[in-house]
Amino acid sequence: MIAPKKSENFPKSRKVYVAGKLHPDIRVPFREISLSPTVSHTGGVEANPPVRVYDTSGPVHSDFKAGLPKLRQSWIAARGAGKIVTQLHYARQGVITPEMEFIAIREGLEPEFVRSEVARGRAIIPVNIKHPESEPMIIGRNFLVKINANIGNSVVASSIAEEVEKMQWSIRWGADTVMDLSTGPKIHETREWIIRNSPVPIGTVPIYQALEKVDGKAEELTWEIYRQTLLEQCEQGVDYFTVHAGVLLRYVPMTAKRKTGIVSRGGAILAKWCLAHHQENFLYTHWDEICEIMAAYDVAFSIGDGLRPGCIADANDEAQFGELFTQGELTTRAWSHGVQVMNEGPGHVPMHLIKENMEKQLEWCHEAPFYTLGPLTTDIAPGYDHITSAIGAAMIGWYGCAMLCYVTPKEHLGLPDKEDVRQGVIAYKIAAHAADLAKGHPGAQFRDDALSKARFEFRWEDQFNLALDPDIAREFHDATLPADGAKLSHFCSMCGPQFCSMKITEDVRKFAAEQGIATDEALKKGMAEKSKEFVEKGAEVYAKT
Amino acid sequence: MIAPKKSENFPKSRKVYVAGKLHPDIRVPFREISLSPTVSHTGGVEANPPVRVYDTSGPVHSDFKAGLPKLRQSWIAARGAGKIVTQLHYARQGVITPEMEFIAIREGLEPEFVRSEVARGRAIIPVNIKHPESEPMIIGRNFLVKINANIGNSVVASSIAEEVEKMQWSIRWGADTVMDLSTGPKIHETREWIIRNSPVPIGTVPIYQALEKVDGKAEELTWEIYRQTLLEQCEQGVDYFTVHAGVLLRYVPMTAKRKTGIVSRGGAILAKWCLAHHQENFLYTHWDEICEIMAAYDVAFSIGDGLRPGCIADANDEAQFGELFTQGELTTRAWSHGVQVMNEGPGHVPMHLIKENMEKQLEWCHEAPFYTLGPLTTDIAPGYDHITSAIGAAMIGWYGCAMLCYVTPKEHLGLPDKEDVRQGVIAYKIAAHAADLAKGHPGAQFRDDALSKARFEFRWEDQFNLALDPDIAREFHDATLPADGAKLSHFCSMCGPQFCSMKITEDVRKFAAEQGIATDEALKKGMAEKSKEFVEKGAEVYAKT
Repeated sequence: MIAPKKSENFPKSRKVYVAGKLHPDIRVPFREISLSPTVSHTGGVEANPPVRVYDTSGPVHSDFKAGLPKLRQSWIAARGAGKIVTQLHYARQGVITPEMEFIAIREGLEPEFVRSEVARGRAIIPVNIKHPESEPMIIGRNFLVKINANIGNSVVASSIAEEVEKMQWSIRWGADTVMDLSTGPKIHETREWIIRNSPVPIGTVPIYQALEKVDGKAEELTWEIYRQTLLEQCEQGVDYFTVHAGVLLRYVPMTAKRKTGIVSRGGAILAKWCLAHHQENFLYTHWDEICEIMAAYDVAFSIGDGLRPGCIADANDEAQFGELFTQGELTTRAWSHGVQVMNEGPGHVPMHLIKENMEKQLEWCHEAPFYTLGPLTTDIAPGYDHITSAIGAAMIGWYGCAMLCYVTPKEHLGLPDKEDVRQGVIAYKIAAHAADLAKGHPGAQFRDDALSKARFEFRWEDQFNLALDPDIAREFHDATLPADGAKLSHFCSMCGPQFCSMKITEDVRKFAAEQGIATDEALKKGMAEKSKEFVEKGAEVYAKT
Repeated sequence: MIAPKKSENFPKSRKVYVAGKLHPDIRVPFREISLSPTVSHTGGVEANPPVRVYDTSGPVHSDFKAGLPKLRQSWIAARGAGKIVTQLHYARQGVITPEMEFIAIREGLEPEFVRSEVARGRAIIPVNIKHPESEPMIIGRNFLVKINANIGNSVVASSIAEEVEKMQWSIRWGADTVMDLSTGPKIHETREWIIRNSPVPIGTVPIYQALEKVDGKAEELTWEIYRQTLLEQCEQGVDYFTVHAGVLLRYVPMTAKRKTGIVSRGGAILAKWCLAHHQENFLYTHWDEICEIMAAYDVAFSIGDGLRPGCIADANDEAQFGELFTQGELTTRAWSHGVQVMNEGPGHVPMHLIKENMEKQLEWCHEAPFYTLGPLTTDIAPGYDHITSAIGAAMIGWYGCAMLCYVTPKEHLGLPDKEDVRQGVIAYKIAAHAADLAKGHPGAQFRDDALSKARFEFRWEDQFNLALDPDIAREFHDATLPADGAKLSHFCSMCGPQFCSMKITEDVRKFAAEQGIATDEALKKGMAEKSKEFVEKGAEVYAKT
């Protein structure tokens, strides 16, 4: 296997680490973007402090065979093994784990707040004790909104190396977790390479692998085969499992009158099993045993939404909400086993029906974190579903959704390649950040402010470097004005060198500053007397370039 | 000048025309997409009716020198000339013009409803009597949400041919109006080519051309120069003008404390003029004269928002809302002259502050249509501002915004090329359609339903052809499964040939149909007895491909 190339660094960026207080061995990574100074109109130079951003990219390493260093190994060992080793279990006992302090530093919050949110079930820290390579992160609506990137090969496409590269590529652009949805052969091997090299939590849908073991015949699935699969994946270090235990027998016929029936692969597998055996979903009937397994590894639940709507017409119907109600029951039962839980949500939902999803989930699932796919707000744009869904994702993030599962431009059409992964991740970083701004998260707006200040001051390089995607920003700028000098100019290609609205405002402000008048005074004094002066000075200010 | 190539037709699409009743010479264009039949599980074949979609692409023509046929010439002549020739004027008199009936057919509504909305000032029909080539369309919140595409060259880039091609390209993808924001030389000539070949209303910002006439020196602008420019553009056939008459002297200093001051080019020009002369904005002081000119041609106002926020931090501040309040005053005054009016809005606004913009605009501007740029919901993604803004655009469209001005991926970085125009238009078609769905517009969901049905039935070609962008949908599909046969298969690349959730549901439904049970009965009867049967049949259903 060829080790995928480690993605290059972001420009003017370096990794910095912040140490823990309760646990001094903790080193929390950030990416620090250095900025150029502001040159004021008087010629004075004023430094701009570097900007620190949340960093999901993990330690730099090149030996993919060896995998990442085992960051959490000693923390896990220090706690000892028990029947229940979950962060929820410790949080309830009042213990602030190193993971919690790590997250507190990462999010700019108090460790005790992190603990209390986890104890309450309102946030989860997906950290399998068998995945010590991961850097702890949290999913909950009182924290930064997170995003997940789906990768995985299928029978018809992709190799292991490509999938590892996609994982690396996802976290470079900012994915907070990655789900490996591989369905073809080599599921185990693919996952092994991904987990050993992943600094972010890895999620899976174990029923996919179980199905491979019965040669694709859903009706031949058994609890024992599933249990073995769970244990195998727990041992490997998967951090959260999608389990479609809410697809109950009685909900399945409710989908027959839908426009697009059951579109979740997991949901369809379970529906087929239920119908074939005319028995209740075996994941539901074995829920307590599943919980016991997951409690012993601290694998979190992502309770699946197998009956999510596959089109606008099917949104918020009885099948969907029936399952959501059952997700709530399953949540309470998992909590009683000390297992961390989030709930998956739709899907395809028009804007006016999005809020109801969030409200019902909060109520029925007792404020466990919600984790939605999009939702897509229209069905008419295959090829652009990263956009149809970023709209819904931003909105539900604002309403309280804790994690947004990305959708790539290839959704409904094919498997995402590396470029699609980038498009999907960036669209969802936008949605998540827009949601953080709307929620008033204290750790959100500073980056917008820094970038807007750079834009206003024509610090082109800083504007690029502060962007979610510096490469594209630079490339687009250079497409119109390629010269290096253009990146220092006080104008841009929209208006040309002679006139620029940004430049005008700079002049208005400069004028005000030169006259020594504060804004409020200016209003009081009246400005008539300044008029002549301004015209004279203006002649200089607007000298042709 | 080289005539730009007429863009190719959409696949399986043809133009169809619907005739008027009140005005039998009216022929309203639609694009009709023909679909393949559904092949049911019993082998039965059921036709799918063709789908008619709103069509902005205009008549097919190739002689760009001759321009488009003058569709509205006889309607205009029949009404005779007067001091006031606006649709508002006729609507108030109870007249249903051919333009109104054209629109009623286009939108699937009653002509009288169109008339009443125009009379009320709640909708506008931008139709300069000197632009008889245009196909009437309406902008108002009780109609389909519209989108505008900005084109135009600047000093540093682009040619006339390119701009005409961008106009053609915009309307091919669905732009409802086009603004020509050219700022370089040849403004008049560029505009002439665009108007004569445009079936959609053309908007401009006349102050841009006026500024060229004073060699870029804002302080040398005069009412007389501006008036001459207005007349010149009225005569040419511009359908709506952005006029920044709400940038009052007293609001200008309010922008000094902003993070990004004044970012509207028009706003900056007027602010500079006001400060230089220490006089009130000459567009404000000459408002009534401007109204008289526009009433004589039926050019509509798009009252500019020169003080719109240029970043998240500046959203909804006193400068912005001060101007909005004045826009309301200007609206009432324009109405008293019989001139049609819409109001421009921001800009950069985080999601939680969007609704306030819409509410204040409705209240202060007496329900005149709102026309916003985005808004962009975060500043941190230059290169992806079609996405940051599609989120805000969809939301404000849902809240009642009548027209959304597109933002392309090049926003803040450079001038859009042809591909950027496509990306911008599609992103905004998505936003507008998502808004139409959320508003429950009766003419919206049928396309989602048709596409989702095609998707569910594995009618790949129909899915592509019903998409906003059939080319991209097909291209993305073929990237993973290029064979022609794959477009007939009952599976896709996400799950591979062995197992597909869509296929499963089809089977579930087929099973229910074969058993002759309706959904409700199924629940009542219980399905235990069916279990064995299903497994037997299932063996066939899941036979390997």
